[in-house]
Amino acid sequence: MLLQVDEGIASVDQLLDRVVHTDVGLLQESSLHIIRAGGKRLRPRVVFLSHLAAGGNDISSVVPLAAAVELVHTATLVHDDINDHSPTRRGRVAVHARWGRTFALLTGDYLFTKVYEMMAPYGPEFNVTMADACVKLVEGETLQAAAAKAGAIDQPTYKRIVTLKTASLFRAGAIMGAQLANGSEKVVEALGNFGKYLGVAFQIVDDVLDVIGDPDTLGKPVGNDMNQGSGAILAQNGRKYTDGSGPGDGEADPIATMMAQLKESGAVEIALIEAREMASKALAGLKNVPESPATEELASLVDQVLERQN
Amino acid sequence: MLLQVDEGIASVDQLLDRVVHTDVGLLQESSLHIIRAGGKRLRPRVVFLSHLAAGGNDISSVVPLAAAVELVHTATLVHDDINDHSPTRRGRVAVHARWGRTFALLTGDYLFTKVYEMMAPYGPEFNVTMADACVKLVEGETLQAAAAKAGAIDQPTYKRIVTLKTASLFRAGAIMGAQLANGSEKVVEALGNFGKYLGVAFQIVDDVLDVIGDPDTLGKPVGNDMNQGSGAILAQNGRKYTDGSGPGDGEADPIATMMAQLKESGAVEIALIEAREMASKALAGLKNVPESPATEELASLVDQVLERQN
Repeated sequence: MLLQVDEGIASVDQLLDRVVHTDVGLLQESSLHIIRAGGKRLRPRVVFLSHLAAGGNDISSVVPLAAAVELVHTATLVHDDINDHSPTRRGRVAVHARWGRTFALLTGDYLFTKVYEMMAPYGPEFNVTMADACVKLVEGETLQAAAAKAGAIDQPTYKRIVTLKTASLFRAGAIMGAQLANGSEKVVEALGNFGKYLGVAFQIVDDVLDVIGDPDTLGKPVGNDMNQGSGAILAQNGRKYTDGSGPGDGEADPIATMMAQLKESGAVEIALIEAREMASKALAGLKNVPESPATEELASLVDQVLERQN
Repeated sequence: MLLQVDEGIASVDQLLDRVVHTDVGLLQESSLHIIRAGGKRLRPRVVFLSHLAAGGNDISSVVPLAAAVELVHTATLVHDDINDHSPTRRGRVAVHARWGRTFALLTGDYLFTKVYEMMAPYGPEFNVTMADACVKLVEGETLQAAAAKAGAIDQPTYKRIVTLKTASLFRAGAIMGAQLANGSEKVVEALGNFGKYLGVAFQIVDDVLDVIGDPDTLGKPVGNDMNQGSGAILAQNGRKYTDGSGPGDGEADPIATMMAQLKESGAVEIALIEAREMASKALAGLKNVPESPATEELASLVDQVLERQN
């Protein structure tokens, strides 16, 4: 079954390569640049496994859905990197850094229209789920940008941001995969909840890695999200343990100082406890799904998310 | 019938107001800012009239479709204004000028996800048409940005850009309006062609107004598109009549110089001849649609497009 899913992921990659084909050379080049940079393909994996867990057996029928979910994520990366001024992504130069902001904006738009094109042949049931996730994703990104601008974030806002910007798409992917297998309402909902909590755990770990990770392993700079408010949950936790002064005035690199303080403050540990709680909720959701090799795989995804280093 | 369409347009405005509702205050504010700034609502008008021309009689059933088409256009305005550094739009300060580039990018993304949300309940037939138009629109914008960057454009490229970035959405709107009336394949195609050529004529006139229009009447600065390559068809035409040197070196305002040259060169007249040719093609398309008050209205739209001053 693992082999089946891996073949599905390979098909997703092939489809993504094909789907961005256009006579407008620049768009194709920039799209392939970010798509071929790889990435964990965690979201399509969730779509496939959710499909199998809900009783589906034809991975190939799920490929376009799984690819569309991955492409939503990819489109947001391109726009995020513009807004975050992030120079690299997935170990490559970011699209805006190579082609400029105008073409990066258009590349993100293009990828999103390609998502829409891929989803169009599916019925309303799927498109309503996907559209809802896309709306929430942009809402979450906006709240995050607002928090970054304000330079302040509290725990409930952080939770809300993560749920909107990351968990929604994981949830939608799990739901659609299960729907395509004609899963019962109960099973679809259970897998949706699994996706949601897996997504929250994933994002918390992502923010932790932004503080303690190795830039070479991550393929992107660390401390970047700190600047953008995403790592702010850690800052919030950290304040309880440090002198609360935040980055010192006149420091050469306030982000580096903040990160050093955070690493020593216990904030990372608090965040990881939170991630493990979310992981438990994800696993609890799985209890409403008949056990199978697919549910086992989903459970092991949770461990991978908690233990990942990049 | 005109009254019916005007009521439909009022319903479109009300729906657009409702549809951008969100707890994320900033997104709602920025969305309403651009939506309530008005605009000609020409695209929804085409959707409604195409529906009636194809035998439909329930304008209210078409409102969400018409609103979605207008919202695609609105989303692209927000992103275009970022890329063009245009300070105003529809007589108001542009979204990026008021909220900054990051939030303007997110506002455009948000409006586009709302389009997707509004279209989701419709079947594949409609979504395939709409998605195709959205893809083409971004391709057209990208070709235009590339031409602006290169500082060069030829007539075939200009035609291609206009067809992709403007005519596609007019065409899709006309097709979907007719499809929702269960129009015959022949009628749907005829109305689609009408929309396409109306769109091309509209864009040429738009580019002409960028040269000879009154900024107060237009609600946006003139000469802006010139800078972005969109008015470049005029430049191209103009070169036949001027010394071909383009904006003079060392001029204080090369755009103003170019515009003055263009106004005197006959380039505007050449463009308007082209616009009238496209208008004739639009009207020719209508011949395959049974005559009705709606087809008369569509024909009079063509005149309005040719004669508009804003």
